[in-house]
Amino acid sequence: MKISQRAHNITPFYVMEVGKAAAELGAQVADSDQPMVYLNIGEPDFTAPPLVQEAAARAIHKGQSQYTPALGLTALRERISHWYRQRYALDIAPERIVVTAGASAALQLACLALIEAGDEMLMPDPSYPCNRHFVSAADGRAVLLPTSAATRFQLDAEQVRQAWGPRTRGVLLASPSNPTGSSIAPEVLRDIHAFVQARGGITLVDEIYLPLSFDARYGGTALALDENVISINSFSKYFNMTGWRLGWMVLPPALVPVIERLAQNLFICPSAIAQHAALACFEPESLVVYEQRRSAFAARRDFFVPALQSAGLDVPVVPDGAFYVWADCSKACERLGVQGSWDFAYEVMRRAHVAITPGRDFGNANTAQFVRFSTASSMDALATAAQRLTTLLT
Amino acid sequence: MKISQRAHNITPFYVMEVGKAAAELGAQVADSDQPMVYLNIGEPDFTAPPLVQEAAARAIHKGQSQYTPALGLTALRERISHWYRQRYALDIAPERIVVTAGASAALQLACLALIEAGDEMLMPDPSYPCNRHFVSAADGRAVLLPTSAATRFQLDAEQVRQAWGPRTRGVLLASPSNPTGSSIAPEVLRDIHAFVQARGGITLVDEIYLPLSFDARYGGTALALDENVISINSFSKYFNMTGWRLGWMVLPPALVPVIERLAQNLFICPSAIAQHAALACFEPESLVVYEQRRSAFAARRDFFVPALQSAGLDVPVVPDGAFYVWADCSKACERLGVQGSWDFAYEVMRRAHVAITPGRDFGNANTAQFVRFSTASSMDALATAAQRLTTLLT
Repeated sequence: MKISQRAHNITPFYVMEVGKAAAELGAQVADSDQPMVYLNIGEPDFTAPPLVQEAAARAIHKGQSQYTPALGLTALRERISHWYRQRYALDIAPERIVVTAGASAALQLACLALIEAGDEMLMPDPSYPCNRHFVSAADGRAVLLPTSAATRFQLDAEQVRQAWGPRTRGVLLASPSNPTGSSIAPEVLRDIHAFVQARGGITLVDEIYLPLSFDARYGGTALALDENVISINSFSKYFNMTGWRLGWMVLPPALVPVIERLAQNLFICPSAIAQHAALACFEPESLVVYEQRRSAFAARRDFFVPALQSAGLDVPVVPDGAFYVWADCSKACERLGVQGSWDFAYEVMRRAHVAITPGRDFGNANTAQFVRFSTASSMDALATAAQRLTTLLT
Repeated sequence: MKISQRAHNITPFYVMEVGKAAAELGAQVADSDQPMVYLNIGEPDFTAPPLVQEAAARAIHKGQSQYTPALGLTALRERISHWYRQRYALDIAPERIVVTAGASAALQLACLALIEAGDEMLMPDPSYPCNRHFVSAADGRAVLLPTSAATRFQLDAEQVRQAWGPRTRGVLLASPSNPTGSSIAPEVLRDIHAFVQARGGITLVDEIYLPLSFDARYGGTALALDENVISINSFSKYFNMTGWRLGWMVLPPALVPVIERLAQNLFICPSAIAQHAALACFEPESLVVYEQRRSAFAARRDFFVPALQSAGLDVPVVPDGAFYVWADCSKACERLGVQGSWDFAYEVMRRAHVAITPGRDFGNANTAQFVRFSTASSMDALATAAQRLTTLLT
């Protein structure tokens, strides 16, 4: 059966292959004295807190499970608006907030609404592979621009200026980023956005990890710049609702009716159950839980980054948010006598029973030199992993 | 802000405008002796039965709310497979069954995987407006072919043959159809599929209303033809889980890895909660409830179609499934002195306080002559509506 060119362009995750191998070996060694430690998964090890669970169960039993408005429940859009005021001291009108079936649906809607076939979007390399594929799904082309530790693995304005061509439609940034856990400096973002605006382009910022920020310098939202920024958000990460599939985006006012039309037709609405549950995310009791968990993620980073460095893995940019560490394994590869991060990841998995993600999925810029560790695991698991890595590598 | 051509092509539902007007007037007359009867909504008036609700609550409290595999929980794919065996005496391997975020995500994935920019899909006129927009989202073009009561408002093979051109990629049928509630005759479907296969095209059949079939002649699935048919399905209608956003599709085996890649990237996975809940849809106790509800829908049709006919609204094809009646209002328009179904719907809403959907959304083929009634309301509501229509129109 003939498939579309678009479908050819959307490549599978290598991480799935590695994950599968890890799960298989993991099953074999489950009862050994060295069971697999999974640091390859980009999913919080927490589930939705009690009030959120109760709100969902209540909605289900009350039959609040019919279709909702395409843009989401008004009450939820209002709570998100309130949260921006509370957390970021920012006035975002509820009308600009569109609730979606995860950040996935938000990115899909934004790309379908804005990208013409052949349009190009500039993105940092490394970056989360799905993000390029939302561009591909809209028949656009993701142009990956190599970054380095010098710019916190983020783009800078000069790079955007040089790369901007006749078909460039905008930039798609992520801050904090997956896989690096590092954020764009606010003044760099400001300069990029000013340039993009001057060219009539789009600034799309994936902020799904933003509330999991550990550093006030990088903890602000891009929405503070002006109302032309499009911000993509999720209930999956900070709010620990991965499998519920809920997110939101904040749009320039003129774009709201366009996205409403697309959302009505292509999604009908986001999950009613998840929306009723999400209302409870913003209760003071839930926010206390979320802040405790954010502190736990920060503490893990504080423990794990120095531990990796002691084991001979360089961390050129200390993550300021999210739950990832982007580690340079060049020296460790030499030590183990392997070539590149792909083989390194397999070697670590086989010899230390620690599952990690090689850089390949995230781009081409020195990604054979890097691996991603997820710290969405307990401190015990991280301590075990650190100790095994030290034994293996030093 | 410049939006894509694709976004321009995706037009809003008129039904939303009518629905809004109905809701506004409805609020005004809510306490009168003639409150609004809403027969404009395409959503079952039932919610998920008890076992399904309990399964969802249990999953939530057990924290079974992480990401699932992109193609859905293996257990759910197996239960759907078993259901095909039980209900349709058909062997559909679980590996061909892909669980999706509603029929919406299924149609989106199928169109993105198979339709190249500029490709055409043949569809009956009238048909559900979203279906054409999934084609538009993939930069394809929906070609609406006019139908009439003579073919049950479905395509026939000769029509497909004549319309087939160099850019035609396939057909997108719906059986039973929204807005007509009528299904395609199995021998007609067989001939269309044979022709489409001979041209190397795609037969995509929206079967979301299929389990709500009232007539054995039309109650079979297109999947019985061969494994090249793509069937789109939903937990919304028969299974009463609209706002949960869950559906599935059955694919030719070769297409499964392609759709998996797209689904991984564009959706991550369908709602974990909804999937755990849906497992309980197939419990004998739930199936008994669903069959009772199907009987209730059949009884409503049996009451309402003759009632409309007595009121002077012709129903040229008696629906054999779903919960819609597609009624010819030409004579009634004359009687009220209005021109066409749009004005007729407003007149009925204002004078009889019965909200209905004018044909305009569903296509161009005599749709100014037709209105859609939804029978997804209680028998009492239908009796009230019938009586008011009789008073107004006779």
